[in-house]
Amino acid sequence: MASDLRTVLIVGTGLIGTSAALALRQRGVRVLLADRDEAAVRLARELGAGEEWQPEREGQEIDLAVIAVPPAHVATELLELQKRDTARFYTDVASVKAEPIDRATQLGCDLTRYVASHPLAGREKSGPGAARADLFLGRPWALCPTPAASAEAVEAVLALIELCGANPVQVDAADHDRAVAVVSHAPHVAASAVAARLTDASDVALGLAGQGVRDVTRIAGGDPGLWLGILSGNATPVAEVLEAVSRDLAEAATALRALADGDGTATNEITQLLKRGVTGHGRIPGKHGGPAPAYVVVQVVIGDRPGQLARLFQVCDEVGVNVEDVRLEHAPGLPLGIAEVSVQPDAAVVLTEALHERGWQVP
Amino acid sequence: MASDLRTVLIVGTGLIGTSAALALRQRGVRVLLADRDEAAVRLARELGAGEEWQPEREGQEIDLAVIAVPPAHVATELLELQKRDTARFYTDVASVKAEPIDRATQLGCDLTRYVASHPLAGREKSGPGAARADLFLGRPWALCPTPAASAEAVEAVLALIELCGANPVQVDAADHDRAVAVVSHAPHVAASAVAARLTDASDVALGLAGQGVRDVTRIAGGDPGLWLGILSGNATPVAEVLEAVSRDLAEAATALRALADGDGTATNEITQLLKRGVTGHGRIPGKHGGPAPAYVVVQVVIGDRPGQLARLFQVCDEVGVNVEDVRLEHAPGLPLGIAEVSVQPDAAVVLTEALHERGWQVP
Repeated sequence: MASDLRTVLIVGTGLIGTSAALALRQRGVRVLLADRDEAAVRLARELGAGEEWQPEREGQEIDLAVIAVPPAHVATELLELQKRDTARFYTDVASVKAEPIDRATQLGCDLTRYVASHPLAGREKSGPGAARADLFLGRPWALCPTPAASAEAVEAVLALIELCGANPVQVDAADHDRAVAVVSHAPHVAASAVAARLTDASDVALGLAGQGVRDVTRIAGGDPGLWLGILSGNATPVAEVLEAVSRDLAEAATALRALADGDGTATNEITQLLKRGVTGHGRIPGKHGGPAPAYVVVQVVIGDRPGQLARLFQVCDEVGVNVEDVRLEHAPGLPLGIAEVSVQPDAAVVLTEALHERGWQVP
Repeated sequence: MASDLRTVLIVGTGLIGTSAALALRQRGVRVLLADRDEAAVRLARELGAGEEWQPEREGQEIDLAVIAVPPAHVATELLELQKRDTARFYTDVASVKAEPIDRATQLGCDLTRYVASHPLAGREKSGPGAARADLFLGRPWALCPTPAASAEAVEAVLALIELCGANPVQVDAADHDRAVAVVSHAPHVAASAVAARLTDASDVALGLAGQGVRDVTRIAGGDPGLWLGILSGNATPVAEVLEAVSRDLAEAATALRALADGDGTATNEITQLLKRGVTGHGRIPGKHGGPAPAYVVVQVVIGDRPGQLARLFQVCDEVGVNVEDVRLEHAPGLPLGIAEVSVQPDAAVVLTEALHERGWQVP
C-alpha cells in the first residue's frame, strides 16, 4: 500500500509538515515542499526534507498533497490546489476536523479525493527547525473520511500514516473533535485555570507546592497564541467539556461549604466526584496503547550528582529489569531526591533485592 | 537545639507517625509508640520505630508528644494527654491546622505547650508498613504556633523538624490552610473533575490521549476516603479556590460559545486565562526550593529494552552532565520512546554532541 506514494507534496513546512517530509524521505518517497514563507521552505530543504515545488515544471505527478497549514486556511488551500488539479489525493493535518471539512464542502471542493487527518503529535517548539523524522512514531494519527471520499483516497492517507510510523485511527470528524476536546483541549484550559490561582498566591503557599500541583499545571506553560488557535477551531466541543467540569467544581464547592456549616450529608457528593475521578483516570491506556498495566514503583534515594542515575540504570541492566517509566522527585533544599522507577511486578522484587545488595537506599 | 529531644512519644503509628519515629531513632532519640490499634503499634515496633509506651511505668520523662491522628481527633487526643501531664510539649501533624487549633482552644487545652505542625510529605500507600525514615528529607514542614505558644514549645517542634531532615516553614494556621488549599487540595479536586469526564468518553477518545491529560489527572487516582478527610478539614478555603476555578472555566466556555457564534472579541478572554496560567505556572519553585530554573530539554530516542537508559545516563556521567530531571515519553504501539532529559543550558550542548558522536538519535 505504502508503495503507492511515489511523490508527495507538503504544503506548509512548519513542524508537522517538515516532520512528515523527513519521515517520507527516509522511506524513499520523493517530497516536494511549498510554503508562503520562502525562508521556511529553504530551511526545510536544507534539513533534507525534500526539494522545492515548482508548479510550472512538467512531469511532476503528485500522488498526495499534505496540507499542513493552520485550521482556518485548510479549505481555501485545498480549493486552490484542486483548481490546478495538483495531486491525485489530498489530506490535511490540522488539529480540528469538522470545521475544515464543512468549509471545504461549502467551497465546493472535490470531496472524493480529500480525506482530513490529524496526527496526535507535537512538540513545545515549532517551525521546520524543530522537525524530526520520528515525530509520529507510534503515535495515533486520526483520519476522518467523509462518505464522499473514495477508497483510493483513504488508502493514500493510510499509506502516508504507515510511512510516518504512526497508528491510523479512523473516526468521524465530529467524534474526533469531541474526543480531543475531552482528552486534550479542555484539560489544557483546566490546567490553566488551576495555574491561574497561583498568580496571586503567597510565596509561602508556593513554598509548600509539591509534585501534585506541578503535574496538574505542567501543560499550562504552553504558548497562549498556539492554544487560542486550537481552542477557537474546536470551540463548541471544548465549551461543553468545560461547562461540565465547571459544574462539578461548583457543586463540590457548594458541598464543602455545606460541610463547613455542619451538613454531614454533603460528604456524599464529594466522595462521588473523587470516585468518578479514580474511574476516569483508570481508563487512560498505558504504554503501547494497551490498557494501563499495574506497574510497581520502586523508590530509590539518589544523590544529586552526575553518575547516580547511570549507576541506578546500570543495576537495572545487570539484572535484566526493563524500566517502564521513571520519575525524579526532588527534595527541595537538599541535594537529594527519590527516583521512582516503574517496573513489572515480578521485576520489582528482583530490582529491590539487587539494589539493597549494592547498598542503595530503597525505602 | 536538636539535642533537647531525648524522648519523644508518637501517638498514632500510621505512615506519618511511624516515619517520624524511624527518623528520630536514626538520630539516637528514644521513641515511645502508642496507637489505639495494637497491631499497628506492634508492626511499628518490629520495624525498629521504637518501644511501646507504658503510661503506668515511672521514669519516662517525655520531651515531646507527636499527635499523628486524623485531623478531627487531634484536639481530644491533646486534651487527654495534657490531663495526664504526659509530655513537656505537644505537636500534631495533621494536614489542616485552623480546625484542630480552634477545637483545642474550645476544649481548654494548654496552648503554651502546643504547637501545631504539618509535614508536606506523603505516599500513595498508608500505614506503618509504608513508613520510611527519609520521608521528610528536604520537604517543607509547616509549623503554626499560636500567640500563646512558649518559645520552648516552638523550639521543641523545630528540633523535631530538624531531626527529620525537613525544612521548617513558620506560618499562621489560617494562611497554611489557604496555602494548601491552592497548591494541593483544590488542584486534587480539579484533577478529579477532569478525570471524571473520561468515565463516559469513547474508547476512541481514550486512544487519542497523550501525556498532557495523563499529567493533569495523575493525582486523581488517589484514595477517595483519605481525600474526603483532607477536604472536609479544610472545606472553606478549598471551596473558595474551587469557586474561582469553576468561574474561570465557565467564563472560558461562554467565550468559546460566543466565538463559535462569530463573536471574535471573545478570544481576548481566553487569551487572558491562558496567559494567567503561564504566569501562575512560572511561579512554582524549581528543584531545591529556588526559583524554577530554565533547564533545557534534550530529547533522545531510546529503545524499549533493558539497558538503554543505563547507557544513556552512562554518557551523561562520562561527560560530567548532571541530569536535573527526566521524563519518558512512550510511543504507543511501538517498542520505542523518547527520553526527555532536562539539563543546565551549558550542559545541553555538551550532552547533545556527546550523544551524536556515540550514534544516539538526538532529533
